[in-house]
Amino acid sequence: MIDRLIEKIKQTNAPVVVGLDPMMKFVPEHIQKKAFSEFGETLEGAAEAIWQYNKAIVDKIYDLIPAVKPQIAMYEQFGIPGLQTFKRTVDYCREKGLVVIGDIKRGDIGSTSTAYAIGHLGRIKIGSNVCSGFRTDFITINPYLGTDGIKPFVDVCREEDKGLFVLVKTSNPSSGEFQDRLIDGRPLYELVAEKVVEWGEDCMDGEYSNVGAVIGATYPELSATLRKLMPRAYFLVPGYGAQGGTAKDLVHCFNEDGLGAIVNSSRGIIAAYKQEKYSKFGPEHFAEASRQAVIDMIEDINSVL
Amino acid sequence: MIDRLIEKIKQTNAPVVVGLDPMMKFVPEHIQKKAFSEFGETLEGAAEAIWQYNKAIVDKIYDLIPAVKPQIAMYEQFGIPGLQTFKRTVDYCREKGLVVIGDIKRGDIGSTSTAYAIGHLGRIKIGSNVCSGFRTDFITINPYLGTDGIKPFVDVCREEDKGLFVLVKTSNPSSGEFQDRLIDGRPLYELVAEKVVEWGEDCMDGEYSNVGAVIGATYPELSATLRKLMPRAYFLVPGYGAQGGTAKDLVHCFNEDGLGAIVNSSRGIIAAYKQEKYSKFGPEHFAEASRQAVIDMIEDINSVL
Repeated sequence: MIDRLIEKIKQTNAPVVVGLDPMMKFVPEHIQKKAFSEFGETLEGAAEAIWQYNKAIVDKIYDLIPAVKPQIAMYEQFGIPGLQTFKRTVDYCREKGLVVIGDIKRGDIGSTSTAYAIGHLGRIKIGSNVCSGFRTDFITINPYLGTDGIKPFVDVCREEDKGLFVLVKTSNPSSGEFQDRLIDGRPLYELVAEKVVEWGEDCMDGEYSNVGAVIGATYPELSATLRKLMPRAYFLVPGYGAQGGTAKDLVHCFNEDGLGAIVNSSRGIIAAYKQEKYSKFGPEHFAEASRQAVIDMIEDINSVL
Repeated sequence: MIDRLIEKIKQTNAPVVVGLDPMMKFVPEHIQKKAFSEFGETLEGAAEAIWQYNKAIVDKIYDLIPAVKPQIAMYEQFGIPGLQTFKRTVDYCREKGLVVIGDIKRGDIGSTSTAYAIGHLGRIKIGSNVCSGFRTDFITINPYLGTDGIKPFVDVCREEDKGLFVLVKTSNPSSGEFQDRLIDGRPLYELVAEKVVEWGEDCMDGEYSNVGAVIGATYPELSATLRKLMPRAYFLVPGYGAQGGTAKDLVHCFNEDGLGAIVNSSRGIIAAYKQEKYSKFGPEHFAEASRQAVIDMIEDINSVL
C-alpha cells in the first residue's frame, strides 16, 4: 500500500495529506442550518452537516492530493451518527481515488489489536461471508503496549496490502514528557523508532515499508536522526501550519530521493476560509478557500525540497 | 464516580468487573443461527448475535457484580452495526444499575482527546441541544502523548463526575518492552504512575480519585510498589484467569481498607461454558455457566483479601 501512496504522491507532485478533522465551529452556518432543518439539532443533524462539509471540500481538492486523513475522534464525538459519517467519508474518498489514512491511534493487547486491525484494515468472516467494518488504507497506532500489541496490525497489513503509521514522536507540546526520557542515554522515541524498523522489515512494499512512523513537524532537530534510524519507513508528519511547524522544519523528514514523508494539515486546509489570508472566499465558498490553501501548501512544501 | 463504584463494590462484596469482550467463536450456535436467519450472515447479523449473547449474560449476572467493561474493539471489528451493539450494551448495563467502564484506550493531542472525552464521557452542544454519543461511566486511556493529551479527559471527568483508568503497566507479555525500561534508574511505568497521581489530585471523589490506573495482574511483584506510589488511585486489574493471573497475585493491588482495586475477567466469565469446569451447563445454558463462574471468581478473590 505504501507503493500506491508513493505513486499517488509522484502523480500529484504533492507530499501532502489533508486532515479531515471537522469541528462544528468550522462548518459554515448555511450547511448547519440545512442539516438541522432536515434532521433536527441532534447527533444525526450534526453528522449530516459534517458529511456535507467534508463532501464539498473533498470534491474541490481530490485532484490535487494523494491522500486524506480523517481523525476518527472528531466523528466519534457524535456517537453512531458521527461514525456513520466517518465511514461515508472514508468510502467516498476511496471512490475518488484517494488513499485514506484512518487516524485512529488504536493499540491494545494482542487479541484486541487483532479486532481493531480487522475492523479498520481487514475483513471478518461471518458465517460463510467475508465482511468489512471500516475500510481505510492506513491507520495510525500507539506503541505503548509493545510488540505483541503491534504484531496483529502488521499481520493484517501483510495479508491485505495495507499500511500503518506508528506513533514515534508526536507533535503536541507535552509529547516529551515520556517520549523524550532517556533510556541508556537515548530518548524513548528512538527505541520506538528501532522497533518500527523491526516491525516493518517483513512488510516491505517496494523501496519502503508498509510500517511507517508519525513524526511531529514541531521538532525539526529530531527528524534528521529519526530519518537515519528508519531509512525505509515513511513518515506521517502532523503539526504543519496551525500547530506551528513550517516547511523549513520538514526538510529532514525527507530522504534524498525526495520521498519518505507526507505532511498533514487539517484545520489549515478545511477551515481555510476562516483565515485572514483566504477571507475573500467567505463562508459560502469555503471549499474553494480549501482548494487555494492546498495549492499554497503544496507550493510551500515543494519550495524547500 | 469512583465513589459510586466503591459503593457498588461494597454492596455486592465483589471487587470484580466482567469484561464484555464478545468474539463470534464464544457465541453459541443457536444464537448465531437465529440472528443470521433474521439479518443474514452480515455485520448486522453478527452484531445482533453479540447483542443477544451479551444481554443473556448480563441478565444472569448483573445482581452479583458492580461493573462491566465492554472492550470496544470487539464491537468495532463489526463496523457500524458492531458499534450499535456496543452502545446498546452500554445503555442496557447502565439501566441495570451497573457501572460501565468503556475499555477504549484512546489518547491523542489535546483537541482530539477533548473529542474522545466528549464522545464517551461527556456531552456535546448541537445548536441549542445537548447530546451524548456514548455514555460510559469510566474509560481507559493511553498516556504516551503526555499531560496535554490527558488533561481534556480529566476536565470532562470533573465536569461530569466520570472516571478514567490510565494504562500504567499492561498485562500482555511484551508490556515490558517500553514500560519497563529504566529512566534515571526507574521503570517508565513508575513515571507514568507519578503522573497519574498528579492528574488525579484535582479529581478526588471521596477517599479515592476519579483518575485510576490499569495494572496487569500478571506482574504481582510490581503491584506493591505501584500501590504505594498511587495510594488514592483505583486499580483496574486485567489479566486474571485466562491471561494467567491468580487471586494470590492480586493481593498487593489492594489497600489495607480492602479497597483500591477491581479485578477484570473477560472470557473466563463470558465463555465459561467452554471450560471443562462448567461444561455441564452446555451451550444452551451458557449464561448460567457465566453466573457460576462469577460466583466462583468472587469467592476466589475474597479468599485472599
